Amino acid sequence: MKLSRRLERLGTETAFTVSAAASAWAAKGNKVYPFHLGDIDLPTPAPVVEAMEKAIRDGYTGYCPGAGIPELRAAVSRDVGSKRGVVYGVPNVSIQPGGKPVIGKFLDAVMEPGDEVLYPNPGYPIYESQIEFQNGVAVPYTFIETANGFVLDLDSLKKSITSRTKALIYNNYQNPISAESSPKEMEDLARLAVENDLWVLSDDAYFEIRYGGKPLSIAGYPGMYERTVILYTFSKRFAMTGWRLGAAIGPEKIIEIINKLNTNNESCTTHFIQKALAQTMETECAGPDEILSTLKNRRDAAVAGLRAIDGVSVGAPNCTFYLYPNVTEVMKRKGFSDVDMLMRDALEKSNVSFCTRNHFGKPLPGETEHYVRFAYSGLDVADIEEGMASLKRYFEG
Amino acid sequence: MKLSRRLERLGTETAFTVSAAASAWAAKGNKVYPFHLGDIDLPTPAPVVEAMEKAIRDGYTGYCPGAGIPELRAAVSRDVGSKRGVVYGVPNVSIQPGGKPVIGKFLDAVMEPGDEVLYPNPGYPIYESQIEFQNGVAVPYTFIETANGFVLDLDSLKKSITSRTKALIYNNYQNPISAESSPKEMEDLARLAVENDLWVLSDDAYFEIRYGGKPLSIAGYPGMYERTVILYTFSKRFAMTGWRLGAAIGPEKIIEIINKLNTNNESCTTHFIQKALAQTMETECAGPDEILSTLKNRRDAAVAGLRAIDGVSVGAPNCTFYLYPNVTEVMKRKGFSDVDMLMRDALEKSNVSFCTRNHFGKPLPGETEHYVRFAYSGLDVADIEEGMASLKRYFEG
Repeated sequence: MKLSRRLERLGTETAFTVSAAASAWAAKGNKVYPFHLGDIDLPTPAPVVEAMEKAIRDGYTGYCPGAGIPELRAAVSRDVGSKRGVVYGVPNVSIQPGGKPVIGKFLDAVMEPGDEVLYPNPGYPIYESQIEFQNGVAVPYTFIETANGFVLDLDSLKKSITSRTKALIYNNYQNPISAESSPKEMEDLARLAVENDLWVLSDDAYFEIRYGGKPLSIAGYPGMYERTVILYTFSKRFAMTGWRLGAAIGPEKIIEIINKLNTNNESCTTHFIQKALAQTMETECAGPDEILSTLKNRRDAAVAGLRAIDGVSVGAPNCTFYLYPNVTEVMKRKGFSDVDMLMRDALEKSNVSFCTRNHFGKPLPGETEHYVRFAYSGLDVADIEEGMASLKRYFEG
Repeated sequence: MKLSRRLERLGTETAFTVSAAASAWAAKGNKVYPFHLGDIDLPTPAPVVEAMEKAIRDGYTGYCPGAGIPELRAAVSRDVGSKRGVVYGVPNVSIQPGGKPVIGKFLDAVMEPGDEVLYPNPGYPIYESQIEFQNGVAVPYTFIETANGFVLDLDSLKKSITSRTKALIYNNYQNPISAESSPKEMEDLARLAVENDLWVLSDDAYFEIRYGGKPLSIAGYPGMYERTVILYTFSKRFAMTGWRLGAAIGPEKIIEIINKLNTNNESCTTHFIQKALAQTMETECAGPDEILSTLKNRRDAAVAGLRAIDGVSVGAPNCTFYLYPNVTEVMKRKGFSDVDMLMRDALEKSNVSFCTRNHFGKPLPGETEHYVRFAYSGLDVADIEEGMASLKRYFEG
């Protein structure tokens, strides 16, 4: 009575083991600074909660359409379209229990076994896992560190395209490195997608988590509308990661397929939660702005704390809630070859918990620099400052 | 830019087209009697709602473990185990956004491409769809009508087993026919599974929707514990179909795999909903009992209404909220060959909406009798009586 062999190709988010180690260390009576968690410790805005409680009282507790309720699909189409300079309607939106389900369903819809899919590495580990589990060939592309952060390694990405390349996964405002494409970079990427007839999954999870400037979307570039599926989530913008609400937005023919996958996989997404966001996502303003302002203060504290450490260099990205410091010098000082050793030692010696480059895809040949990832969304400024001071003592010691 | 060829093998729930037709007919100003809907129009018990509201106030709005929160996994393990005479613990439970996700994940975990999987037909259409979409071979088994309802056609099921048969999907307290195994039938089925080394998915969606007697589970038979995955849902028992909460329960090695699939597909299930049910599922009693008592009254009204119609025969099943009347004589009287024609004609001539045999899997060779399916969970007794009177005029006319 065996399990299926294809399970050997299924990956996971290894960052969960970091959470487990942090919990175990906290359980021994230590105060842990949880920079490993890509979660938000702020309350969901009250108008969203109140709208949900009303929706339950009004009886929205039964099934709803697998594609989502029309009011929410309409609200998402207006909100997502207007912010990206494209026009979407109800048929372009498929509501999901979170943003993550879009990854697997996009691949279900476009990828044949043996097809190659380009994905960012370092990047969100589920891309690689889902491509490989579904019998695709996961082809990584990477980034180049500059004085101002990271840029796409577009030349090597271009060289990776073959006749089997079917799709590109693109996560602008990127986890873990907070890379952000310039208009020129995005235009070049869009042209590559059009020239090579690629489907594009635009993971816009952090599209609204920006501390200034106007966000850009690849869906608005020439020839992109008909080949782009946007992964949208309410999780970050409304501090509601545990509610599980997101959407796939794209051309009608692929959204119809994704709706059919919804019917097969989940029936529908929680009815009263959809109702609540349909009523608040376009009117509720103070909540998301307050969340952003809190996150910006935390970013400033975390960047200052890291830059005060000898041997650490880090950008001050204008998006996401992640920092991706280069710790190569600290590694040399400590005599470690594997950055996970630094992570484990830091937890016990400084009570600071963080993820490393190894949690965001298999390291690529030729990598010589060492990086770790700090999320500043789950600690207040006082704890960020305390944690960074403790880390400084350990990293410099 | 093509979509994947494997989409050709993806099925769906065609019953949704019945809902669409009923809505369109209602939009023309007609009062529709919605016997097609397998949903419950009763409110979720107040203690569940209150516990959820408290969980949000207490801040359970962030991510939680992909496997589910430990308190809910523990509560489900006790509740499900004790009612089935088996012992489960936290590692045996994987929380899901509904019962349905268990179907695809079970197949992901056990089925190789080309493997054969036995599934009930008539039955829930997603079994066949998921088996075929995942490159398995869907092998139907069926039921025999008796004076007291339906029994499994165990002989033909036995003959369908080959060396490629990997798993059996078993939905006792069955949708749409409300079949219920005798202890003998269940024992025979369990023996077949053990002798042929099959995995078993026991879809227990209606395990608690019973109007008397003690429910039986195949998981408790000798040799079954280690090969059975239970599909559990809160949807029917607590009238919370739109909340999306369920679980997979089974041997630890397969539950670990399903947890990993959760991490890949959904991250986690809504945090505060889990918290609410962890606190109420073992203590909340009046709610489910009231729901059952209401459903029983509706069953009695629906059975009486159907039995009063000349040319209709129907059992009075002790479980689920579905009736599966034989309408062969009515078909002859009306001169229809396809039962969907009767369905469409009935909607316009009697305002009664129902599903047919065709919505529950591809009809099998040699079927001569005609059946329709009535759900009585979405109408009160007065509307059931009114609808049945209208149907009688149409069926007998």
